[in-house]
Amino acid sequence: MNIKEISQTVIGRLPRYYRYLGELQKSGIERISSGALSKKMNVTASQIRQDLNNFGGFGQQGYGYNVAYLRSEIGKILGLDTEHNMIVMGAGNLGQALAKYSSFERSSFFVRGIFDNDPKHQGRTVRGIPVMMMDELEGFLSNNQIDIAALTIPKEAVSEVVERLVKNGVKAFLNFALVDLELPKDVIVENVHMSDSLMRLSYNMIQRKEN
Amino acid sequence: MNIKEISQTVIGRLPRYYRYLGELQKSGIERISSGALSKKMNVTASQIRQDLNNFGGFGQQGYGYNVAYLRSEIGKILGLDTEHNMIVMGAGNLGQALAKYSSFERSSFFVRGIFDNDPKHQGRTVRGIPVMMMDELEGFLSNNQIDIAALTIPKEAVSEVVERLVKNGVKAFLNFALVDLELPKDVIVENVHMSDSLMRLSYNMIQRKEN
Repeated sequence: MNIKEISQTVIGRLPRYYRYLGELQKSGIERISSGALSKKMNVTASQIRQDLNNFGGFGQQGYGYNVAYLRSEIGKILGLDTEHNMIVMGAGNLGQALAKYSSFERSSFFVRGIFDNDPKHQGRTVRGIPVMMMDELEGFLSNNQIDIAALTIPKEAVSEVVERLVKNGVKAFLNFALVDLELPKDVIVENVHMSDSLMRLSYNMIQRKEN
Repeated sequence: MNIKEISQTVIGRLPRYYRYLGELQKSGIERISSGALSKKMNVTASQIRQDLNNFGGFGQQGYGYNVAYLRSEIGKILGLDTEHNMIVMGAGNLGQALAKYSSFERSSFFVRGIFDNDPKHQGRTVRGIPVMMMDELEGFLSNNQIDIAALTIPKEAVSEVVERLVKNGVKAFLNFALVDLELPKDVIVENVHMSDSLMRLSYNMIQRKEN
């Protein structure tokens, strides 16, 4: 399957397909037409067909999509058929929220450790996940295959922490800090900038009032 | 200024300009060329000129941009020159993290209250912000002009809560719940779906390995 040329916009829609198909599966629905799926997801049927054709189709003309099969194929494309081990940098409210967030595990993302430099967190666990101190980081990384680090630390601390993580093999970041990471080419990042989301909301509020 | 036709992609980049210009201002830089700004932001200078031309320019050929002026104009476009009052639904870790998140206030977003239905939170405050029970919601909304509600509640509770909020005048949502909201046309939403971000990260990790 050649999926090298798929745009990030299409990729961005796949998690939503995956989520909807999971809900259909839970409701016992085995087969769905692109028309019915489009109604449920509030996108056009032709958009759905186009998106899924990027990956070779999956549907049979007139028969609709096999829900379980389509979901599992999209899961494979998204890499959800293998476990991903994560650590969370920062044991504050956001870090704890991430460690407790059960939706991650349903998609094969497992938080294996939380790191902080505040001794008040030492020895704590969050939902069974240990909070460790920063001087334990390198040791932990050499004993555990960690794919992803979520960054919930203050932006002033980010560049030093990221350098230590990259040096010890972490190649992917979920970045909540309000700073753009400077990273080697083989390291990837997804930013979750909540203030940016609020600003887009605010912009769209003005447009709504003006129209 | 006619800004009706600007694509959401351009809008999506404005918060980042706003952030960078704020940092330049803090470092005492008064004027910057699109070339220097582009180097700092890791986008092309022509992209920057194109983006800002959407709003009528701001730059003078050969003189670069006035940092403070450009930032303040982008702030106005994003609606950051007026205060936005927010409430946070859900007093769990994520809700508390949002209430404590000081970057919001720097962009004129103020959390005025937190709501939960768990009596254990009754009477608490988070950084001075009161946690109230759900039966106080309508009273609070009739006495306070609230623009935005952040949703950090379980997805099963979302539709009922959103209905109560919309009925009482809340017209914008920052949605962390893993569910697509069904909303009247004049209500807007920004989704912050952290599992979707992780899935995009996972997809891009596979691509990186294959290339």
